[in-house]
Amino acid sequence: MAERIGKYTLNFTSKPSIVGNAAVVGKKEGEGPLGEEFDKIYTDTTMGECSWEKAESSIQREAIIRALAKADTATSQVDAVIAGDLLNQCIGTTFGLREMNIPFAGVYGACSTMALSLLMGSIMVDGGAVNTCVCATSSHFCSAERQFRYPLEYGGQRPPAAQWTVTGSGAAVLKKSGGTVKVTKGIIGRIQDLGIRDANNMGAAMAPAAASTITDFLKDTGTVPEDYDMILTGDLGSVGSKLLCELMVKESGIDISAVHRDCGVMIFDPENQDVNAGGSGCGCSGAVVCSYIMRRLQQGELKKVLFVGTGALMSPTSSKQGESVPGIAHGVLLSTE
Amino acid sequence: MAERIGKYTLNFTSKPSIVGNAAVVGKKEGEGPLGEEFDKIYTDTTMGECSWEKAESSIQREAIIRALAKADTATSQVDAVIAGDLLNQCIGTTFGLREMNIPFAGVYGACSTMALSLLMGSIMVDGGAVNTCVCATSSHFCSAERQFRYPLEYGGQRPPAAQWTVTGSGAAVLKKSGGTVKVTKGIIGRIQDLGIRDANNMGAAMAPAAASTITDFLKDTGTVPEDYDMILTGDLGSVGSKLLCELMVKESGIDISAVHRDCGVMIFDPENQDVNAGGSGCGCSGAVVCSYIMRRLQQGELKKVLFVGTGALMSPTSSKQGESVPGIAHGVLLSTE
Repeated sequence: MAERIGKYTLNFTSKPSIVGNAAVVGKKEGEGPLGEEFDKIYTDTTMGECSWEKAESSIQREAIIRALAKADTATSQVDAVIAGDLLNQCIGTTFGLREMNIPFAGVYGACSTMALSLLMGSIMVDGGAVNTCVCATSSHFCSAERQFRYPLEYGGQRPPAAQWTVTGSGAAVLKKSGGTVKVTKGIIGRIQDLGIRDANNMGAAMAPAAASTITDFLKDTGTVPEDYDMILTGDLGSVGSKLLCELMVKESGIDISAVHRDCGVMIFDPENQDVNAGGSGCGCSGAVVCSYIMRRLQQGELKKVLFVGTGALMSPTSSKQGESVPGIAHGVLLSTE
Repeated sequence: MAERIGKYTLNFTSKPSIVGNAAVVGKKEGEGPLGEEFDKIYTDTTMGECSWEKAESSIQREAIIRALAKADTATSQVDAVIAGDLLNQCIGTTFGLREMNIPFAGVYGACSTMALSLLMGSIMVDGGAVNTCVCATSSHFCSAERQFRYPLEYGGQRPPAAQWTVTGSGAAVLKKSGGTVKVTKGIIGRIQDLGIRDANNMGAAMAPAAASTITDFLKDTGTVPEDYDMILTGDLGSVGSKLLCELMVKESGIDISAVHRDCGVMIFDPENQDVNAGGSGCGCSGAVVCSYIMRRLQQGELKKVLFVGTGALMSPTSSKQGESVPGIAHGVLLSTE
């Protein structure tokens, strides 16, 4: 059973356990600083499929299959997959899961999806609704670029604040017990919108949501940033990360800069990979959390990581209609204690 | 705590309670056979907004506000909204909820969203993750038509199996106790795909998923159709409803025809409203369940309704790429016992 702490935070008394995790990425991600961490790196952007959307489905499926294999769990033993992606109507997920015959609950949190799926999965395991579930997400540079921005062939210029959608997928298998890493707490985010209208500056649009969720969590739990080995945001990139730290100091006097890291900053080399403000997309935090972060936790280098996935809840239609970009951030506390 | 029954079914031992519900619809829905049932009928398709997408957001917001008012619950007392819609990146929901400042978990289940949100909400209340939550969804004929089919101005012909997207929204407030109607059981659906490729025949694409979920539920609970006052599908329409009944007899010898009803068949008058095979869209089952069905349960005319929301997990992109239309169906048992 979950207990509520303060106004927004959930305490998972049964401590759902991550018993398997895997990350599958594309060539550019494999060439980045975390290249050694991933389970599989595809050098062909199409992953052998005939469209980028199908390629995205295939990497999500592969991440799930690999995570289940590491958890020594058959698909028939899985009570639910909780997953989603950025594509219209979440087709990356649907067609990735179609043949698996596993109960499927679709979630939508834009780039916060890895955190949202881990959060909903933990709620379900903790409350007895499922014994075993898989939490997963994916994104693909090419399927996202043409859907959200321009046809790739157009070769549009990218402004400095733009981020590069990660081609990648992360999957984690949750059970009641058995793994080193537990999900001990969680927080469902509230939509924050400070009026950012630049669809090429997602980091700025999402930073207020991350600030809100992290502040709420620290307040609810009566903790300070130094209580965590890492406060990890999903994909604010370099622009959004700077804003987050500044915003939190300004609004609540909390300085997280000593423990803050960001998956969007970590996954690419800003000097040599021409990604402007860093990585983005559901697969960014999916791949980083389900590889590098889990491994550091499993090996004892990290003990408590507050992972806050961040999402920009816009669509090309809402932007064309002059809407600003609302952000959301969902959090899970990954702990080995 | 939820108990698992059989392979797929959840038993919510705490019986989460529906303490408020509301449905807001458009003109055509108001002129249909259930017109008297809805809380608010807009005669202007734009709901006074400057785009159909914004109109959809406004009806979802209004349904939530009305449901909360009936539940005598302030937005500040709500621990989470679980909601989604059909629009790309679920912007109907995002912009509807933006100013509410309530923690928000986005779900995606296409037209099964009302059932999925009730299911996830029940899991969360039952497991102690939230004390109060709102489950909601919406659709709008005009925003859906131009996104999924043709520009409205084109006036494309509609084949006989096509369904008419409902302009409407439904919202339900769930708490641990206090309402007449309880969510006592639930089932997360599995994707079913029999290879239907006609994006104008969603009923046929979704019928196998409904058959699978209903069959699993009856098998897991050791019950027969006659144990329920109604087995209610989301929006199979007349074509899909016929297929569902036939499929279940053929595949498992179960005849649900005596107790089967379908929200897509119920919401419009097939003789006089020119809707071909009936209604569809997330708002179809949202509006029917959160008005007519809840009222019949509250008044004692119905005691046990197995509500199975059905969704077609396609996008225009997947259809253009030659993919078939996978279906999914999620179920909740609404009971006054």
